[in-house]
Amino acid sequence: MNAEDIAIIGASGYTGQELLRFLRRHPKVTRIRLASRQDAGQAVAPILRQTAPQIDRHYVHPDDASLKQAGVVFYATPNGTALHTARNFVEAGCRVIDLSADFRLKDAAQYAKWYGEPHEEAALLAEAVYGLVEINRAQIVGARLIANPGCYASAVQLGLIPLLQQGLITSPLIADVKSGTTGAGKKLETQYLYTEVNENFRAYAVGGHRHHPEIVQGLMAAQEKSAAMPELVFTPHLLPMQRGILATLHVRTEKGCSRERIREAYRQAYHDCPFMVLHPDGQFPCTAEVVNTNMVSLGFFMREAGEMMTVLVALDNMVKGAAGQAIQNFNVMMGWPETLGLIG
Amino acid sequence: MNAEDIAIIGASGYTGQELLRFLRRHPKVTRIRLASRQDAGQAVAPILRQTAPQIDRHYVHPDDASLKQAGVVFYATPNGTALHTARNFVEAGCRVIDLSADFRLKDAAQYAKWYGEPHEEAALLAEAVYGLVEINRAQIVGARLIANPGCYASAVQLGLIPLLQQGLITSPLIADVKSGTTGAGKKLETQYLYTEVNENFRAYAVGGHRHHPEIVQGLMAAQEKSAAMPELVFTPHLLPMQRGILATLHVRTEKGCSRERIREAYRQAYHDCPFMVLHPDGQFPCTAEVVNTNMVSLGFFMREAGEMMTVLVALDNMVKGAAGQAIQNFNVMMGWPETLGLIG
Amino acid sequence: MNAEDIAIIGASGYTGQELLRFLRRHPKVTRIRLASRQDAGQAVAPILRQTAPQIDRHYVHPDDASLKQAGVVFYATPNGTALHTARNFVEAGCRVIDLSADFRLKDAAQYAKWYGEPHEEAALLAEAVYGLVEINRAQIVGARLIANPGCYASAVQLGLIPLLQQGLITSPLIADVKSGTTGAGKKLETQYLYTEVNENFRAYAVGGHRHHPEIVQGLMAAQEKSAAMPELVFTPHLLPMQRGILATLHVRTEKGCSRERIREAYRQAYHDCPFMVLHPDGQFPCTAEVVNTNMVSLGFFMREAGEMMTVLVALDNMVKGAAGQAIQNFNVMMGWPETLGLIG
Amino acid sequence: MNAEDIAIIGASGYTGQELLRFLRRHPKVTRIRLASRQDAGQAVAPILRQTAPQIDRHYVHPDDASLKQAGVVFYATPNGTALHTARNFVEAGCRVIDLSADFRLKDAAQYAKWYGEPHEEAALLAEAVYGLVEINRAQIVGARLIANPGCYASAVQLGLIPLLQQGLITSPLIADVKSGTTGAGKKLETQYLYTEVNENFRAYAVGGHRHHPEIVQGLMAAQEKSAAMPELVFTPHLLPMQRGILATLHVRTEKGCSRERIREAYRQAYHDCPFMVLHPDGQFPCTAEVVNTNMVSLGFFMREAGEMMTVLVALDNMVKGAAGQAIQNFNVMMGWPETLGLIG
Repeated sequence: MNAEDIAIIGASGYTGQELLRFLRRHPKVTRIRLASRQDAGQAVAPILRQTAPQIDRHYVHPDDASLKQAGVVFYATPNGTALHTARNFVEAGCRVIDLSADFRLKDAAQYAKWYGEPHEEAALLAEAVYGLVEINRAQIVGARLIANPGCYASAVQLGLIPLLQQGLITSPLIADVKSGTTGAGKKLETQYLYTEVNENFRAYAVGGHRHHPEIVQGLMAAQEKSAAMPELVFTPHLLPMQRGILATLHVRTEKGCSRERIREAYRQAYHDCPFMVLHPDGQFPCTAEVVNTNMVSLGFFMREAGEMMTVLVALDNMVKGAAGQAIQNFNVMMGWPETLGLIG
Repeated sequence: MNAEDIAIIGASGYTGQELLRFLRRHPKVTRIRLASRQDAGQAVAPILRQTAPQIDRHYVHPDDASLKQAGVVFYATPNGTALHTARNFVEAGCRVIDLSADFRLKDAAQYAKWYGEPHEEAALLAEAVYGLVEINRAQIVGARLIANPGCYASAVQLGLIPLLQQGLITSPLIADVKSGTTGAGKKLETQYLYTEVNENFRAYAVGGHRHHPEIVQGLMAAQEKSAAMPELVFTPHLLPMQRGILATLHVRTEKGCSRERIREAYRQAYHDCPFMVLHPDGQFPCTAEVVNTNMVSLGFFMREAGEMMTVLVALDNMVKGAAGQAIQNFNVMMGWPETLGLIG
Repeated sequence: MNAEDIAIIGASGYTGQELLRFLRRHPKVTRIRLASRQDAGQAVAPILRQTAPQIDRHYVHPDDASLKQAGVVFYATPNGTALHTARNFVEAGCRVIDLSADFRLKDAAQYAKWYGEPHEEAALLAEAVYGLVEINRAQIVGARLIANPGCYASAVQLGLIPLLQQGLITSPLIADVKSGTTGAGKKLETQYLYTEVNENFRAYAVGGHRHHPEIVQGLMAAQEKSAAMPELVFTPHLLPMQRGILATLHVRTEKGCSRERIREAYRQAYHDCPFMVLHPDGQFPCTAEVVNTNMVSLGFFMREAGEMMTVLVALDNMVKGAAGQAIQNFNVMMGWPETLGLIG
Repeated sequence: MNAEDIAIIGASGYTGQELLRFLRRHPKVTRIRLASRQDAGQAVAPILRQTAPQIDRHYVHPDDASLKQAGVVFYATPNGTALHTARNFVEAGCRVIDLSADFRLKDAAQYAKWYGEPHEEAALLAEAVYGLVEINRAQIVGARLIANPGCYASAVQLGLIPLLQQGLITSPLIADVKSGTTGAGKKLETQYLYTEVNENFRAYAVGGHRHHPEIVQGLMAAQEKSAAMPELVFTPHLLPMQRGILATLHVRTEKGCSRERIREAYRQAYHDCPFMVLHPDGQFPCTAEVVNTNMVSLGFFMREAGEMMTVLVALDNMVKGAAGQAIQNFNVMMGWPETLGLIG
């Protein structure tokens, strides 16, 4: 496997372009193959290639046999694509990093329920590692198939898991989460027109969003096995801006808890994590401070023990919530420094 | 008192200009006096007057004696202004509608705590009517001094009071609330520069916001007297847009509750309220649908009884959250139809 | 004809909704019929009707016979619709105000060239009055069919016609014009997605835009008959905002010209025009000052006579550029005060 | 001189932060010193340093002697700062790249006229190289003091100079230019508040902007010596977005000109320029395609020879218009590949 030779499938979408933006300055990558169903055969725009000649000159079709020569294949495709073709790459010896939801839910029945088709790749699903690097770093090293986490799911889990691991919080876990509009991709629907999103704000998927089971799966794994399933309320909202997620997490602290224990729990969980930043007391993250970076910014406000506390988590949905985390997975998988190509 | 002759004090600010926008097409208003400390003596811009000659030609100083000839005086000033001068107008026989916070908190000690100066107008404070029209309509008729509610406080109370009145919900009451930037007024601070707000999203006043005691006061009044003070968590956020508030309210329903009872509680509370709209099941408000109007749009999603439910409330912070509600109070105070000058 | 009974065809689009926003508070209008191909049979949202019961309860189909009972019919439809059905209304005795381009170009060949189908309503086209009120007020009184001007065409003509009429400027006439995105309507194209328009700025139709012949027609009418066709360069741009047009007009002044003569030309042309505002020297319009109003704001900077001068014109593309101007035409047509329903 | 050790003076401003964003991933830079008057002594935020430990831990004062140990000093300060202190660094053997306007205008009288104070560093001014790399590359190699061009001035000159050099265009040269708001820096003025800029568009400095003499100086140098001063009309506008400039240039082509000659002129001027991209006929640049990059995107529409033609130029005012061009100058000055640290 030649890890320096990589392929992006779904290269015309927002996530594919964002992968390209970071991979073109990744110091290990010497060749970038671009596959796109809609742009197959077309030339890559000079504005993308001119300062990065390691990018192939033309888009190929996602089924093009040449893609198997890549050492690592990134899927930046809609859900339900990698599900059907990732096996071909794995069997050809490629490593696969799937940015879609296809290998995130370990329970195939949950996949079928939320994504609308059966999951028939049981072996790959069992093998796939959920690539939330700060939590699963050890399993990612050497993995063949990474399920890159969802953007909302990354924010909520990174905010709650350290506290759940140490038994510091309890239900209800209210995740009131807001995202920039790139999170919706390039879907051609009236609700995503400029004139509908601009100067507007709304919640959506109020009754249930696909990242709900993904978050619950992660939170359950963080808790003691005997603990009950947490009462999670996950409400996403659409922000009139391009990028950035802010998760406002309202959770109840346990009786014995203290501000110092909360802080210590985050420190223990993230002390060797270059992309995690915890604000001092009285300071809170905003999305602008992490936009265009792979950073995750955290802050919290604790009232009395036993009362509701507020945790705030900010990340860029296109970077830490998608392309950046994928490259972070790529780096860890290869045994390289975690920040390669991700600075700035 | 000649109600058709009105004065706006603080006419240069965003709220003053918004009052002007509505009052200039109010069918009863025949004269509009504009007072502004900073613009005193200056001519009113032709773009404001040209199609509305009932507007005075020049701004006067807020202390100008001529203002007492107005039948109704609107204060669109910063907090701490009406506190010191409203009495002069009341004693001169004017009605006063104060859009600031000066007469909202019935407990003078709370005022001192949150607004930083003692409240020494005990008699006026006792007399002032809290102008949340849908809840207090009866007291507003004929009132001499109206405390026009805060924007956030309006959204949260209108979403929760009908449910609290009927004992359908219980703590925690999580009010995760987001507002457009006009809510901050014209404050000249780095944090409100375009380049700081645009493409950014953040929470603020995480540890405590001035509307917290205002909301608690309203919720307590709605509950049975014996009920404990609710556990309210109120977290405001700043949206990168001009106008609009969306309150996402996460509250626990009582065991016996049902979706029908929730809906019925809203219907009873608001059946004769022209500005209140309740969405059918599965539909939720967005800010765009109420922007530039005095409407309040509600929707809710109930899970099982005893679980957390989600209520969404949208209004325009400059209209129903400020100038529009003030005119609604004006109409009710005068015994006119509630919607005069507020259509569109 | 009962002018108080009006109909909007194309009521679901942005322009139709904007017409509704103004007509619901028009003091003469007692009934508003809404026709929409896509919403036919559906109930009008309570948020639109609740404070304005004169609005019909359901949308009807544009072919519904009941529409002919309206005294005045507003077309807020795409180009090529009124062309085929306006005659039915005119023959039934209705007045028609067409907000599309169908009756704007007096030369049917030009229509065919720019709009892609032949214009076969020669009689109506001859009769139609171009509804740029400030220029054509006299012909509008009593007209049966009004061609409501295009948004760009309004801005450019209102900026240039007074100067051309007095022979104060000469070619080249550079109209570098910028518009908010509502100007594009609700077209479902990738280029109008939020994520494509937001934080972006571009020119479009660089080689030729449909308002070009409309503007030239208007400018030619303003010049002396013997004058040559002006060299007009019209370049529209798309702004990342909802509403507002700013036209930056670069034109060459004639040798003998002076700043006073320029100002006097505008004064003569617009002295009795309630919606026209000319800024004093050194001040220039911005779009925010006219948004949501029917006002047109003008300013100019003259260098030396014989050099290029700069004229700036701001208006709201949805109001003076569409719905507001249509209502202004309605008022003039009926002999009512020009500002009825248009204040604020 | 140790070019790997660099200092940024004015590191807290937008331009300083942007320099930092690029320099932290520049492969040659091993130490970054940050100087800021307002933040002197304060710690650099973890979110900036955590993945880039070559950044110094604390801000120092701009007068701190340690800064002279840097090999290269970047000034990201307001105008009038480098003017007074750059000499200290040059005499200490540092190279200086000044992003302000202090050394751009070769005529000290012009500087005094436009920037309001006399220019008393005649020797340095004579030595300073105007760092428009694509035009002046040869002089930049080995220079000690670079005057980094203004953002507008870069866009307009890069669009016009190749055509002027070949005598293909003539007056009037209309530069109708639009910029995102970061161009205004962090100035605390009401006109730059979010609520004033958002959903608004306006021209400014209509009668004269400081980049006017800078552009004229560059255009004069490009013309034949005998040619008359061109009639330049330069009108900047403020866009409601963070970043990006689009220059719409309206110029008259010479009689003999052709589309092919225009294209060839650009090709000759920019064939070895990695950051210059010329669109094919019928395609035009937008700001989004260059944002966050050092690229300049060009397109043009030619009508008949002798008529007005339209040239469109897009660049990011913070990158090619400021920090990116400064690093491009740094690379060329040092003899390194021009794109180092600037990819992506």
